[in-house]
Amino acid sequence: MEEKIYDLIIIGAGPAGLTASIYAQRAGLNTLVLEKLSPGGQILLSEKIENYPGFSQPIFPQKLMEEMQKQAENLGMRLEQGEVEKIGIENNKKIVYTKSGEKYNALSLIIASGCSQRKLGVQGEEKFIGRGVSYCATCDAPFFKEKKVAVVGGSNTAAEEALYLTKFVDKVYLIHRRGMLRAEKILQERISKNPKIEIVWKSVIERIYGEKEVKGVKIKNVDTEEIKDLSCSGVFIFVGLEPNTHFLRNMVKLDEIGFVNTNNNLQTDKKGIFACGDVRKNTLKQVIVACGEGALAAYSAQKYINNIKGIEYN
Amino acid sequence: MEEKIYDLIIIGAGPAGLTASIYAQRAGLNTLVLEKLSPGGQILLSEKIENYPGFSQPIFPQKLMEEMQKQAENLGMRLEQGEVEKIGIENNKKIVYTKSGEKYNALSLIIASGCSQRKLGVQGEEKFIGRGVSYCATCDAPFFKEKKVAVVGGSNTAAEEALYLTKFVDKVYLIHRRGMLRAEKILQERISKNPKIEIVWKSVIERIYGEKEVKGVKIKNVDTEEIKDLSCSGVFIFVGLEPNTHFLRNMVKLDEIGFVNTNNNLQTDKKGIFACGDVRKNTLKQVIVACGEGALAAYSAQKYINNIKGIEYN
Repeated sequence: MEEKIYDLIIIGAGPAGLTASIYAQRAGLNTLVLEKLSPGGQILLSEKIENYPGFSQPIFPQKLMEEMQKQAENLGMRLEQGEVEKIGIENNKKIVYTKSGEKYNALSLIIASGCSQRKLGVQGEEKFIGRGVSYCATCDAPFFKEKKVAVVGGSNTAAEEALYLTKFVDKVYLIHRRGMLRAEKILQERISKNPKIEIVWKSVIERIYGEKEVKGVKIKNVDTEEIKDLSCSGVFIFVGLEPNTHFLRNMVKLDEIGFVNTNNNLQTDKKGIFACGDVRKNTLKQVIVACGEGALAAYSAQKYINNIKGIEYN
Repeated sequence: MEEKIYDLIIIGAGPAGLTASIYAQRAGLNTLVLEKLSPGGQILLSEKIENYPGFSQPIFPQKLMEEMQKQAENLGMRLEQGEVEKIGIENNKKIVYTKSGEKYNALSLIIASGCSQRKLGVQGEEKFIGRGVSYCATCDAPFFKEKKVAVVGGSNTAAEEALYLTKFVDKVYLIHRRGMLRAEKILQERISKNPKIEIVWKSVIERIYGEKEVKGVKIKNVDTEEIKDLSCSGVFIFVGLEPNTHFLRNMVKLDEIGFVNTNNNLQTDKKGIFACGDVRKNTLKQVIVACGEGALAAYSAQKYINNIKGIEYN
């Protein structure tokens, strides 16, 4: 029996992958979407989205991503659960191996596997994951009602998560290693107006301590090197993103952090393998940017496939 | 009295410009949006949008663009009507002159002025504009009830407009100079299933003729050079886009057609002048791509402005 070969396999079903799927289905490509968990991506960890164009009122990310999924499904999207372990190339054929032992073939691939929150890498962090240490306020905030928590980071995500936590907790220490937040001005203003948030500038966490659960953090001022103790029951860590590209090592060109390098048409250094969204080395990690890139990646994949099949428009 | 200097002027309020405005307002930039007609852009000429991610059912472009406009207005967008005539640069200051004689100053500009439908450039075209020749089916289709029309082009736009016209007219001749449509597969299939559409392959219009109104077209087969006559009351022309960049000539670097060249951060060859959306030399003219670029252009403008003002995050 001859092996099935898809035109295109899309790895990841967040905003970038689902948009790529919408465009690939419309282009008539025989497409498979592989997702390791359930569709939606990192954005599902946010409380609300205010800056996706087309919605004058804030929307829930669940709703937005459900709509994208339905839109792709209406066009015939084939979605399977599977965590990719590695990728192989045989001539033009790309082979995708999953951790559960499945093997899929395709003429082209779109990497849309996104990012995860980066670990802080301090003592106590691993030990207290799920017992005070969290990477998702919208998931875990209700466990910290009327308690004190620390939030680490200065990005949009850190700011949004700190604001969200104030609906539950009594006090948020927002710990940032710099003297200024990177977050959007509109978020900075909301933070400065919120009486429950105290910003601890120019400080880094040295150690997270406790017994069964977190009891506090030792922080160091980066200028004075002074060590201080903050008593808190939770530590929410948002110190940047780590690309989900372990399965790509030694296969496509990554930058030093692990983000995928592409050209202007979103092709990696391997012909027929494209990347889009947060996993790509790009400037702005935003849903709308990921979607725009998803459309372009599908368009580029289509051109590549037509070329292989000898269908040329020009 | 000191002249007012905006942080940012955005030229054009289509998907790219409105998204740039949303992101600029959130970043706290003092922003002015200039639009020559009314907000919305070229997409308003389409009947429905099926491929903007986040809407599982087709939406009306009016509705989508109203929502984007409201979203920007909720954040304090300042929108003025004005058609830009030319741009000047004095040191860091950019000066925008409109055709009605207004003059505005800003630290940075985002060009989001979009495209218009390109003229075919054949005999009779200019003469019969508004009397049979049209560049917008959704605007003019009702004038051709139960008549025969010609549609020129092979793109998504040409295909969509031809399909739309079949709701009104008796017959659509889809005239294309190639032997294959460039339009998405899903649209090609709808076309081939529609009994009212007859594709006239490998043909170009030589001349549009009539008396007071269009009576027909002379077409030439590009292979055989055979001339044929098609009797029709309307000619809808969709042969590509022409960037709205007349006001930029000799100011920023354009390609041979007039699209704006930018780097990866969407900056033109002039510092502090950015471009996004259909007006930019990019691969894919789609609403979702324009929006993604709008977000990135605003982000890049913000970084440029902070740098000028001496606000540096890093």
